[in-house]
Amino acid sequence: MFERVVICGVGLIGGSFSLALKKAGLAGTVVGVGRHPETLQTAMSLGLIDEIAADWSAALAGASLVLLAMPVGQMASVMAAMAPHLGPDTLVTDAGSTKADVFEAVYTHLNHRLQNVVPAHPIAGAEKSGPAAAFAGLFSGKRVVVTPLPENSDESVRRVEEAWAACGAIVGRMSSMDHDRVFAAVSHLPHLLAFGLVHDIQGRDNAEQLFSFAASGFRDFTRIAGSHPEMWRDICLSNRQALLAELDAYLTELAYLRALLMQGDGNALETLFGQASSARNAWAEKYLK
Amino acid sequence: MFERVVICGVGLIGGSFSLALKKAGLAGTVVGVGRHPETLQTAMSLGLIDEIAADWSAALAGASLVLLAMPVGQMASVMAAMAPHLGPDTLVTDAGSTKADVFEAVYTHLNHRLQNVVPAHPIAGAEKSGPAAAFAGLFSGKRVVVTPLPENSDESVRRVEEAWAACGAIVGRMSSMDHDRVFAAVSHLPHLLAFGLVHDIQGRDNAEQLFSFAASGFRDFTRIAGSHPEMWRDICLSNRQALLAELDAYLTELAYLRALLMQGDGNALETLFGQASSARNAWAEKYLK
Repeated sequence: MFERVVICGVGLIGGSFSLALKKAGLAGTVVGVGRHPETLQTAMSLGLIDEIAADWSAALAGASLVLLAMPVGQMASVMAAMAPHLGPDTLVTDAGSTKADVFEAVYTHLNHRLQNVVPAHPIAGAEKSGPAAAFAGLFSGKRVVVTPLPENSDESVRRVEEAWAACGAIVGRMSSMDHDRVFAAVSHLPHLLAFGLVHDIQGRDNAEQLFSFAASGFRDFTRIAGSHPEMWRDICLSNRQALLAELDAYLTELAYLRALLMQGDGNALETLFGQASSARNAWAEKYLK
Repeated sequence: MFERVVICGVGLIGGSFSLALKKAGLAGTVVGVGRHPETLQTAMSLGLIDEIAADWSAALAGASLVLLAMPVGQMASVMAAMAPHLGPDTLVTDAGSTKADVFEAVYTHLNHRLQNVVPAHPIAGAEKSGPAAAFAGLFSGKRVVVTPLPENSDESVRRVEEAWAACGAIVGRMSSMDHDRVFAAVSHLPHLLAFGLVHDIQGRDNAEQLFSFAASGFRDFTRIAGSHPEMWRDICLSNRQALLAELDAYLTELAYLRALLMQGDGNALETLFGQASSARNAWAEKYLK
């Protein structure tokens, strides 16, 4: 049971965390903090939070658990602002999509509380963002990767894992470096590629004609290009090293594909497409049931 | 009314065309032709066709309408085989995803029947292929691009357009060159990119780990990587000129994105992501209702 839960950034993720914890009977009062007063008012009126905190001092007084659910670019400044008011018994977790930068911000600003700050990443999202998109079942059956600091106490890690598990998530652990490499490959690069494709097309003279013939393949391939620009700017910048490594590996792949096209090498193209198709279908068989 | 409809390649597209024409009351007898006897037997048992033709001579005797629905790589050899048996009153259309190569095959092999050969491309597909995937509603509300030859008679174009419209499709016209450029951008390139991403990942030592953390963004981005390898080999080869131009434009886009990442230019990244996101969401608003 977390008597006083503080959520910084009451959007899709923060709002859904609150609803899920309340539904599980684990949250007492939920307090919202954020940049935008109107978002907090909306969150109140939707029942996502019970109180709006005037400042970090008021928010953190007696807090049991803090969730940081803002875009990752704000982690450092938010941690700096909360640091003087963070008590020794308050647990902190986050929902940032990258972890190296969260670690850096924690060591810079919260180094007096390393025992209780347990970074995490819920692998859940939706096309829509903001408090109106929040729902209690967002994390149900989804993975949450917890990336503990070496300084975390076992008890803190256990309680943070319990909070995410109470939201219905499947909780696992990983190092922050493994986390950032894995998600650069299977999430951050695909987002970059989808943004790039739509940006390429929308800037052309015949963009309207092109869009008018786009069908279901385009629809699915580009769905993630509709994602939140600021959030993805922050993810790309904060995981830029791993993302550049993935982008370069992909550029090598495209150079190979380009050579096969130039040479008209149908056998090699069919082999490559066949390997990709088999792997994609095996993945779907295993994970989309 | 088409008394005798011949379908070469009774898979998803050919089988659905037959079912849709029958449902509209426009097809008399539907005759199947193809490489694989077992596929034709399946198509018969599913009620997609009424007869299996022993050869092109038998198939085309008295034929009103022929649909060529094989992978585009087979267009030339199929047209060569049917040419001696194709009567002066038989209409021909096709469902090939690329058109320049179909034009070339028509001018090479069917140049005695140019009045009646009206190439087309139904913008409809599904993850599954083969006769078992066929259904009468496949073309309902989908676009069919008709790319007439200059030599076509108005009457032939009108009748082919009527056949596709009877399947529920929204029929429009385009030149073959415009067609191939448009679909290189909004369909062929995304397929190549999705195949490339999955191929890149599946060949790695930690492929299993990567796949295990892939979520809904990866699911949608890579759905088209599960497509038919032979069909996509043929499309890539036959539309290779336009596809290479699109790939090169995209590589320029990725080089720009790479430079922004290297420089850590958050403003420019956010602007680009914002333009892509707005365009994608406007597209969805307009076309996914």
